[in-house]
Amino acid sequence: MGRDRILRLFGEHVRELRGLSGLSQEALAARAGIHRTYVGGVERGERNISLNNIVRLAEALGVSPRDLFPEDLNLNRPRLNRQ
Amino acid sequence: MGRDRILRLFGEHVRELRGLSGLSQEALAARAGIHRTYVGGVERGERNISLNNIVRLAEALGVSPRDLFPEDLNLNRPRLNRQ
Repeated sequence: MGRDRILRLFGEHVRELRGLSGLSQEALAARAGIHRTYVGGVERGERNISLNNIVRLAEALGVSPRDLFPEDLNLNRPRLNRQ
Repeated sequence: MGRDRILRLFGEHVRELRGLSGLSQEALAARAGIHRTYVGGVERGERNISLNNIVRLAEALGVSPRDLFPEDLNLNRPRLNRQ
């Protein structure tokens, strides 16, 4: 799976979870201790977010870090089968 | 949960999964397209690994990205309850 696509799918899922939580981008950013523009970049798939920030976002959204990963990313395809 | 502790728990879990897979650090690194010393740093909790590399490691281990996260990190404690 392409790297850009991974970031995009992850970001879309974060946005979806944020929507479900009822938090604005600004409120989520404040709660997670991350800058609002960074959260926006993550949601647009423009940021290769780090583990620490993944955990911060998860805590702020009240979910497990693993729940930030969309089902689409659960690919167990061996490397050789990718394009 | 402290940031150092998060990285350490994540790294220990990666090492555990790698052990189960029967791959050496070198073999996992080669399969994931990541440098061996970087994989070592992740396992020791010294690297704040990025999303793209999390997905690469997961693919190389044949697991879902979410499975790289140990249960210990599934903390939904509200921010105010942390030390």
